[in-house]
Amino acid sequence: MNEQAAAGNQTTVKVGLGERSYDIVIGPGILRDAGNRLARVLPGARAAVVTDETVAGFHLDTLKTALDNAGVGHEVITVPPGEKSKSFEHLQEVVDGILAARLERADVVIALGGGVVGDLAGFASGIVRRGMNFVQIPTSLLAQVDSSVGGKTGINSTHGKNLIGVFHQPKLVIADSALLDTLTPREFRAGYAEVAKYGLINQPDFFGWLEKSWEDIFAGGPARVEAIARSCQSKADIVERDERESGERALLNLGHTFGHALETATGYDSKRLVHGEAVSIGMVMAHRFSARMNLASVDDAQRVEAHLREVGLPTRVSDIRGELPDEETLLSYIAQDKKVSRGALTFILTNGIGRSFIARDVPASEVLSFLRENRPQ
Amino acid sequence: MNEQAAAGNQTTVKVGLGERSYDIVIGPGILRDAGNRLARVLPGARAAVVTDETVAGFHLDTLKTALDNAGVGHEVITVPPGEKSKSFEHLQEVVDGILAARLERADVVIALGGGVVGDLAGFASGIVRRGMNFVQIPTSLLAQVDSSVGGKTGINSTHGKNLIGVFHQPKLVIADSALLDTLTPREFRAGYAEVAKYGLINQPDFFGWLEKSWEDIFAGGPARVEAIARSCQSKADIVERDERESGERALLNLGHTFGHALETATGYDSKRLVHGEAVSIGMVMAHRFSARMNLASVDDAQRVEAHLREVGLPTRVSDIRGELPDEETLLSYIAQDKKVSRGALTFILTNGIGRSFIARDVPASEVLSFLRENRPQ
Ligand SMILES: NC(=O)c1ccc[n+]([C@@H]2O[C@H](COP(=O)([O-])OP(=O)(O)OC[C@H]3O[C@@H](n4cnc5c(N)ncnc54)[C@H](O)[C@@H]3O)[C@@H](O)[C@H]2O)c1
Ligand SMILES: NC(=O)c1ccc[n+]([C@@H]2O[C@H](COP(=O)([O-])OP(=O)(O)OC[C@H]3O[C@@H](n4cnc5c(N)ncnc54)[C@H](O)[C@@H]3O)[C@@H](O)[C@H]2O)c1
Ligand SMILES: [Zn+2]
Ligand SMILES: [Zn+2]
Repeated sequence: MNEQAAAGNQTTVKVGLGERSYDIVIGPGILRDAGNRLARVLPGARAAVVTDETVAGFHLDTLKTALDNAGVGHEVITVPPGEKSKSFEHLQEVVDGILAARLERADVVIALGGGVVGDLAGFASGIVRRGMNFVQIPTSLLAQVDSSVGGKTGINSTHGKNLIGVFHQPKLVIADSALLDTLTPREFRAGYAEVAKYGLINQPDFFGWLEKSWEDIFAGGPARVEAIARSCQSKADIVERDERESGERALLNLGHTFGHALETATGYDSKRLVHGEAVSIGMVMAHRFSARMNLASVDDAQRVEAHLREVGLPTRVSDIRGELPDEETLLSYIAQDKKVSRGALTFILTNGIGRSFIARDVPASEVLSFLRENRPQ
Repeated sequence: MNEQAAAGNQTTVKVGLGERSYDIVIGPGILRDAGNRLARVLPGARAAVVTDETVAGFHLDTLKTALDNAGVGHEVITVPPGEKSKSFEHLQEVVDGILAARLERADVVIALGGGVVGDLAGFASGIVRRGMNFVQIPTSLLAQVDSSVGGKTGINSTHGKNLIGVFHQPKLVIADSALLDTLTPREFRAGYAEVAKYGLINQPDFFGWLEKSWEDIFAGGPARVEAIARSCQSKADIVERDERESGERALLNLGHTFGHALETATGYDSKRLVHGEAVSIGMVMAHRFSARMNLASVDDAQRVEAHLREVGLPTRVSDIRGELPDEETLLSYIAQDKKVSRGALTFILTNGIGRSFIARDVPASEVLSFLRENRPQ
């Protein structure tokens, strides 16, 4: 189903989902050609560009020029940066903006930003007129390797992260790897956690390559494009086999059950913790919890932690600044997480690097003991 | 694909949509058995019942008892009656209620009410955890013959009706025809407009039968069950061929383009106009506009108007009490309607009773002239 077609330093990953198939185009500088690319996929469409204030400051002009050059009429809807924009209030704002621009179903909503903008704009495009065209232009590493691929969209609830949303596939993903040069090092690292995740799920070779190549990926150039493409390919392979997460797709949640609980615990306060950092800590916890259950070796857990720590990611709950709720409360956040099925706790555990699996019926008592053993002193 | 299976005075209409197929069970008194029926389709599911205050007063206890008897745990979420509940505010309230009840994807949201509750609860169930199970228990005639079938859900925007929503099919529809006895005559009539619509779309025989049988339908008994079943069958046939309204399904909008504009014009004020009344006026306008364009005979338009007037429905813009905006404004409401494609006006027009068709590129100027000729004096 999938193939990678290299053209110069561009790569295309195809996501094969029947009539919902689409291309992910990856390469440095391709934002400048975004208008033409979009017009080829959706001829005649007008656009609403959804972005956040930070990304707008760096890259909106380039996109606007690209759209103008291709004759694509557009309006811009800007939200504040940060996870708090994944709320009902901002959803309503974006939906109203799209309707006020009088876009029709054949027109398009473009997300220019990180995972927050992608999830929010994707959700809005999925519910305006019961589903409009949608194009992702991810600008963070996390969004380029993860959130822009696969069609999950949504917002947060006070009851937990991403609890409200729809599946709505984009028609095209344009991942300009040079845009990542304006990302803060901290945000780049956070996105890198999701890159490492693909290695840890089912590709030990890729994880080994990352251990050797991570500095080149951070520096930019061909290794960065390759890391993004291999990540997108990994995700596409899984999504093609299980678009609506009735099974295997749950593997992509490696590190996320613990991670989401930590994000809830820190009130989505990006000063304390961003999503990729939570995933980094969560992945290490998943490996250490697996080792504790005698499912994986302690060595593998240590190797995972060592690599994530080397690139500068937090790996322990104790790396989070400030107060955290007690372990019972953390467990209650885990139990509300959407990977819970009929009261049994479902976790992604592992038999070692690249050997993750879906574990249903994990005893809550074991999780609680593990959390308590790891209480920051 | 479809069949009607009669069992006593119950009828089942099957909606054949592959893995999204479901039954519509129709008959007097079947609410009392709703718990068992639900438990057969969704064993082990817990429920959130969404209803409105009026319907709760009449029928909630019967449903609660039925659920209790079948061992189905449930919470109740009540919204105010009326179109104004199809808003972002109430959507958020219902979504929060479902999450607060800690329902999972395998649990179920039940809509007990008219089209408003069905559209709102259906939308909420379509976005909580990116899609939960949903069961419709329609309590108005309109909901039993139209809104509970076919998977359209949504809320209104200040920019127009039903502009925000998702396609989300129910797992089961339970239409207890005896519940309609508590409906006001005015609401019953409004629902009847949608029954007549099926005859006018493509079943002249059915329309003829309605002209003869309408008093029996209003009185209750076998003619009522038959009218509901034939309506559901009509809608199911169309939805099976075009689930996501890329073509033929638009026929179901007969009368709705004019109708929605009138609803917007009266600010969704149910004292002045309810949905079915707007559709009644809209269907007469569609027939008269078709006659004016020499597409249909004036006789047919008069026959449609005569029948709707006989049952007590409004048929003219002048039947609406109070001030209305001018024709340019009405036209702008029509143009924002979601059946507009790339600026061309799309209407459902007709060649006569039971011979409706989708007309694209209807000149806005003709519509404006027609509206002006019909200005209430
Ligand atoms: N839909 C999915 O499948 C999926 C998968 C993973 C994560 N997510 C979601 O993604 C979100 C996290 O994504 P994120 O880390 O991109 O968050 P984000 O969108 O908040 O971006 C992080 C920060 O980087 C800034 N930024 C983005 N691109 C930039 C650039 N090129 N230059 C300078 N600054 C830039 C943003 O303004 C923001 O402040 C979470 O809400 C998470 O739930 C969704
Ligand atoms: N989703 C679709 O495909 C679709 C199709 C047609 C209409 N609709 C929508 O349906 C809505 C109109 O539906 P409606 O006419 O049922 O409106 P409604 O839900 O507001 O019900 C009308 C009134 O009747 C009351 N009521 C309902 N059942 C009753 C009963 N058994 N006894 C006493 N009172 C009862 C309600 O409380 C309300 O006051 C509109 O919002 C329209 O857009 C949707
Ligand atoms: Zn993630
Ligand atoms: Zn209707």
